[in-house]
Amino acid sequence: MDNRTITFKNTPCIISSGCVVGKNESEGPLSEYFDKCVKDGRFGEKTWEQGESKFQKTALDYALKKANLSQSDLGCIFGGDLLNQCVASSFAYRDMDVPFIGLYGACSTFVEGLALAGVFVDSGAVSRAAVCVSSHFCTAERQYRNPLAYGGQRPPTAQRTVTGAGSVIVSQGEKTFPKIARATFGSVVDSGINDANNMGACMAPAAYKSLKEHFKNTHTSPSDFDLIATGDLGEIGRKTVRDLFYRDGVDMGESYIDCGCEMFDIHRQDMHAGASGCACAATVFSGYIMDGLKNSKWKRILLAGTGSLQSPLTVQQNETVPGICHVVEIEV
Amino acid sequence: MDNRTITFKNTPCIISSGCVVGKNESEGPLSEYFDKCVKDGRFGEKTWEQGESKFQKTALDYALKKANLSQSDLGCIFGGDLLNQCVASSFAYRDMDVPFIGLYGACSTFVEGLALAGVFVDSGAVSRAAVCVSSHFCTAERQYRNPLAYGGQRPPTAQRTVTGAGSVIVSQGEKTFPKIARATFGSVVDSGINDANNMGACMAPAAYKSLKEHFKNTHTSPSDFDLIATGDLGEIGRKTVRDLFYRDGVDMGESYIDCGCEMFDIHRQDMHAGASGCACAATVFSGYIMDGLKNSKWKRILLAGTGSLQSPLTVQQNETVPGICHVVEIEV
Repeated sequence: MDNRTITFKNTPCIISSGCVVGKNESEGPLSEYFDKCVKDGRFGEKTWEQGESKFQKTALDYALKKANLSQSDLGCIFGGDLLNQCVASSFAYRDMDVPFIGLYGACSTFVEGLALAGVFVDSGAVSRAAVCVSSHFCTAERQYRNPLAYGGQRPPTAQRTVTGAGSVIVSQGEKTFPKIARATFGSVVDSGINDANNMGACMAPAAYKSLKEHFKNTHTSPSDFDLIATGDLGEIGRKTVRDLFYRDGVDMGESYIDCGCEMFDIHRQDMHAGASGCACAATVFSGYIMDGLKNSKWKRILLAGTGSLQSPLTVQQNETVPGICHVVEIEV
Repeated sequence: MDNRTITFKNTPCIISSGCVVGKNESEGPLSEYFDKCVKDGRFGEKTWEQGESKFQKTALDYALKKANLSQSDLGCIFGGDLLNQCVASSFAYRDMDVPFIGLYGACSTFVEGLALAGVFVDSGAVSRAAVCVSSHFCTAERQYRNPLAYGGQRPPTAQRTVTGAGSVIVSQGEKTFPKIARATFGSVVDSGINDANNMGACMAPAAYKSLKEHFKNTHTSPSDFDLIATGDLGEIGRKTVRDLFYRDGVDMGESYIDCGCEMFDIHRQDMHAGASGCACAATVFSGYIMDGLKNSKWKRILLAGTGSLQSPLTVQQNETVPGICHVVEIEV
């Protein structure tokens, strides 16, 4: 069996990032780190879905602008979202003459894309790649759960889908920028949990497995990293990851955070178990974490994108909810 | 702007393939090329969706077995399907300890995965990668159109989703096998067509654009290839591609086929405009085309995976149906 952690040799760097969020996200503790806050969920469009596409386009525009690049400078875009047939992404790029590589990794899609961009830029397949993903509370809620007007009650384990989009540009060999050093793609992990309203519990075993594999393959432990951020486990999933490592005698320490716990002031904003969605890891990384990397607050970090792999149909069919987690290691 | 065709240097080879199809496919002209024909749409499972997952697992098993490999020999699996949240794929791999990279490229997913596997194996990110995709008439029909029991009439432009799955194993440097020489990822092409029952017309402009780009970037023309196969344009889309090239003074010639026209005996089997679905290009390639490559019937080919990027919701919202097409060049 291969060592399944990929080590990059040619310094694929994250040369810029962009992020746009919705109203609730702009009222949370990370507000200052986002490029733009849009109070109108439709973003001036006719439907929430069209609005979500615009979030994605706008996040990419910010990332391009900050790097002083235009669309034609991109070798490809890795994109995805949570909508059926990933239409937020494909419609975002329908006017753009840039190769589009569509991904579906549920809420792990941003990190999946980041790792793929690492491989593409490292190998020279492209000189520059963009990663851009989105999610939207209103489009997700009506697709996965209930129409918003129904006003359904949510259990305390539920998480709130982040409205927004995050994007990064990955380019070769510009060493002053944060570089993608390694990546570990995760496998599908099914722990037999079937409560789709407790996604943190469904995804935590996958996060544990992929992080453990990354530590093993790179001969590291949590204390080697200034920051370890899981994507959107929320309060329950984050605690579960801590507990699973604790059983192995491994302390995840103070440097372990979860983007789903950082996005909102959970109690003040009444956000139940925290934030979730493709855009959760994407915006927290593109805004807050990139800022910390650029200011050398952190020098070596892990970003672990987590996804739960159910559909409304599999939930109706009483299937379990498997999880997946992809890990990238980033250094300054 | 980069030359957007990727040329592989380290001979990523397709060392084996596997394909499993359903009843109608097994009654078509390519029957002898498939590894297994399954008359039961549920494949012995409780639901069609679980059956589709089993098609996918079984196709991968055939590909592994023929290469004398086991799951642990794989660095990763690129997988996808047409179901909401790509559950046929993620549930297929939930018992497998192999990194899973989920894709959504509609019916272009097989070729998207083949090109990604080319990049991964060429760069040494993994030694071996599998690509496996599925589609299923019964799961697709009730998700995209009507419950099967409704017995809806279909217009003559409609295509029939292939029931089945196709898989290949890509590995480095084994030169007696067909090798992936080049790949061109396509962009999203929106020609303003909004008839979701005429997917051939929606996808043809994307096929034309990506093939044209591949010819330009590689200084080739259709006559340089022994076979050019688009994924699932059907009779209308295939004719449209011919016409679009004809306007440029380019004759696509006799070597141009479409997998969606090859799968069924369209008139005898009453298949309207032909076949479609992720599994169309995947099974025709993994069975029929791989056979021709191994027997040196063809020495240099193009496989152009085509996808239409709508969802039932975007159709209801009266959106257009954009298309996408990814191209891989394969040599013996």
